[in-house]
Amino acid sequence: MNNLPIVDAEISIEPIGTSDTSMGKEVAAAYNAIRSIQNLKVTLTPMSTQIESDNLDDILQAIRIAHNSAKSSGVKRVISTIRIDERLDKPNTMEEKVQSVKAKVS
Amino acid sequence: MNNLPIVDAEISIEPIGTSDTSMGKEVAAAYNAIRSIQNLKVTLTPMSTQIESDNLDDILQAIRIAHNSAKSSGVKRVISTIRIDERLDKPNTMEEKVQSVKAKVS
Amino acid sequence: MNNLPIVDAEISIEPIGTSDTSMGKEVAAAYNAIRSIQNLKVTLTPMSTQIESDNLDDILQAIRIAHNSAKSSGVKRVISTIRIDERLDKPNTMEEKVQSVKAKVS
Amino acid sequence: MNNLPIVDAEISIEPIGTSDTSMGKEVAAAYNAIRSIQNLKVTLTPMSTQIESDNLDDILQAIRIAHNSAKSSGVKRVISTIRIDERLDKPNTMEEKVQSVKAKVS
Repeated sequence: MNNLPIVDAEISIEPIGTSDTSMGKEVAAAYNAIRSIQNLKVTLTPMSTQIESDNLDDILQAIRIAHNSAKSSGVKRVISTIRIDERLDKPNTMEEKVQSVKAKVS
Repeated sequence: MNNLPIVDAEISIEPIGTSDTSMGKEVAAAYNAIRSIQNLKVTLTPMSTQIESDNLDDILQAIRIAHNSAKSSGVKRVISTIRIDERLDKPNTMEEKVQSVKAKVS
Repeated sequence: MNNLPIVDAEISIEPIGTSDTSMGKEVAAAYNAIRSIQNLKVTLTPMSTQIESDNLDDILQAIRIAHNSAKSSGVKRVISTIRIDERLDKPNTMEEKVQSVKAKVS
Repeated sequence: MNNLPIVDAEISIEPIGTSDTSMGKEVAAAYNAIRSIQNLKVTLTPMSTQIESDNLDDILQAIRIAHNSAKSSGVKRVISTIRIDERLDKPNTMEEKVQSVKAKVS
């Protein structure tokens, strides 16, 4: 990122209509595609791929290529859940958010 | 829409850091902005704004202008939750989805 | 409901690992199960089942039986997305929320 | 946990109607409350509190006390977003999910 991070997001991709209860292949494809976008900080978690950016458009691009990666792998229906946290008054780093909460509970 | 609907989505916008427990003003601004996009079918529900489109890009544009509408109204932090249902094997109309379920329970 | 509605929620159930791209059967089972809870106002929408209640516990019970209904139909993996809006300062009716927004945009 | 983990979930709590754009205090209260439940594996992430359990009821209890913690701190409106991933065919550990994806992309 060239500028301050102001947008955090998480994206979960679910393939529908595959006979496999595992989704690792589709999640890996989406994660790999998202990592190909420059200037994003990308973290894989058990429930979602989390992203930090300095602009909203890169988050929207991540959603686009996550859907496209699933479709490229042959999935006929994709349902995604996305949460976007955009902040104007100060930087919105993912690391600082976790530290702020942990400081209040330790 | 000029082509078959294949993408349904719902968008919820939440302003953070306003002293008002009501969010009607920000939701109205987002809903109004989304309705300005051509070729979308837009429905307001109690929990979200639901959208039907023939392409994913218009859904991403709806997310963009929903965030922008909240920021334009002076909100300093916006958290949105989005679900996108994209389907390749057949049209994905919102009306048909509800009818299909109701036919199975009545 | 015997008391004022204070909690609104929406629940989406997704079966994973079925070979069918349609989810109507599982959504119908969940919707039917949720409707069996007394004192809930339940509305089916294209993206979710929306619920109005006077207490949080009935919403949690709706989540429980929605998962159980999908498992009873033989699904081996269920992913649900839930949003809960609980409000203490005034009644939180779903109808009023929509009317409030529409009054601001018309 | 005494039995195999089969349910993973993530919970995000958002206070509405506070004049502060930061939510650290309310998230910390919810995280602390969830950690008080026995036999849960709880991880704080930048976008949510993630939970692993051997049963669905403990996840629902986590939602209940997260809402209650926010209300106890004086917040008049709480909106939460929850995703639950319940799996019957094999254990559903959060660590294994991440490793499975990383093995496919490295």
